[in-house]
Amino acid sequence: MNERSIPKATLGRLPLYLNYLRRLPPTSGPTISATQIARQLYLGEVQVRKDLAAVSGAGKPRIGYVVRDLIENLESALGGDQVTQAVLVGAGKLGGALLEYNGFEEYGIQIVAAFDRDDQAGRTSRKVGAIRLVGELESFCREHDIRLGIITVNSESAQEVCDRMVDSGIKAIWNFAPCGLSVPEDILLKQENFALSLAHLNNLLCNRI
Amino acid sequence: MNERSIPKATLGRLPLYLNYLRRLPPTSGPTISATQIARQLYLGEVQVRKDLAAVSGAGKPRIGYVVRDLIENLESALGGDQVTQAVLVGAGKLGGALLEYNGFEEYGIQIVAAFDRDDQAGRTSRKVGAIRLVGELESFCREHDIRLGIITVNSESAQEVCDRMVDSGIKAIWNFAPCGLSVPEDILLKQENFALSLAHLNNLLCNRI
Repeated sequence: MNERSIPKATLGRLPLYLNYLRRLPPTSGPTISATQIARQLYLGEVQVRKDLAAVSGAGKPRIGYVVRDLIENLESALGGDQVTQAVLVGAGKLGGALLEYNGFEEYGIQIVAAFDRDDQAGRTSRKVGAIRLVGELESFCREHDIRLGIITVNSESAQEVCDRMVDSGIKAIWNFAPCGLSVPEDILLKQENFALSLAHLNNLLCNRI
Repeated sequence: MNERSIPKATLGRLPLYLNYLRRLPPTSGPTISATQIARQLYLGEVQVRKDLAAVSGAGKPRIGYVVRDLIENLESALGGDQVTQAVLVGAGKLGGALLEYNGFEEYGIQIVAAFDRDDQAGRTSRKVGAIRLVGELESFCREHDIRLGIITVNSESAQEVCDRMVDSGIKAIWNFAPCGLSVPEDILLKQENFALSLAHLNNLLCNRI
């Protein structure tokens, strides 16, 4: 469990540090400095210092960090041994793509089940097995104490799915449907907006011509 | 063509203003104030003023904006009559989902062609017709003056596709493959990282428990 919220950009670099430290040769010493890490990973020293401070406090002057402790702190910030289980509702193209997406595990997240309507049930996914009926969402989430839900249905069904997730005890929702959702105040909602991402890139492009 | 770069959050609200103004009844006057718009759309007045200033300058004191001019400025900021054409390489699940995604048009962007390897060619997509061979990418982009490219292939092929796009005259690349890409300095690159988005949400969630 993390002690504090870590900025998104920092979080994105943590797997990089972790992979580097885990691959240090046995001949390297028990401690390592931010300077060494920065040089090896071609990152700015100030950035590395700030990133490591966010997960492991300040290093010791002239010594740096104890490698073993730093690895432990990075693992813990990334979810560590504790994996967060998530469910996905909407096993269409986008949902299917997310189910096959590699990289969630690296951040301590695992999609453990996918749900869809009657006419999709019976299909299977390599990662989660059979697609379940959306009617089973609540019992599944209660049984497995699921707190993270991903919505990949269309705009028409998104609010209904969102309400079902909230009723199922889910506390954080990642919505890919191109529509706003209304949630109770204590629910975290992250809206993915592909059109807006592309529009932003296009807007930058137009301004450079 | 836009005169300046518009912040992403502002850009996201522009279709909202545009839809509202376009639907004003003919009986409403020729001008409208930021206060009126804010009230009707349940937005903060300061925010609306800032958003409109970014696309249309400050309104006139006590009068506000000329509706017709404001509509024109919003249309122009969103790409207006000038549609940016984009290509997509990688017509798998994620690529297919993006091809079917509604909402790009609203921001003046149109995916006009999708490319893939030999074994995918011959398949068709409702929006762009037949999936083309990736070998035809350069000639297509040159012929249609394409400047925006979307990469939805796997990590192994992403850099090769990226290089091909740059060789084809593309100036802005939106990468969905979960890997970094190296591009020349004058190329805009936007990296989409699903794992990181979900990790960020998870990190926020863990800190609230």
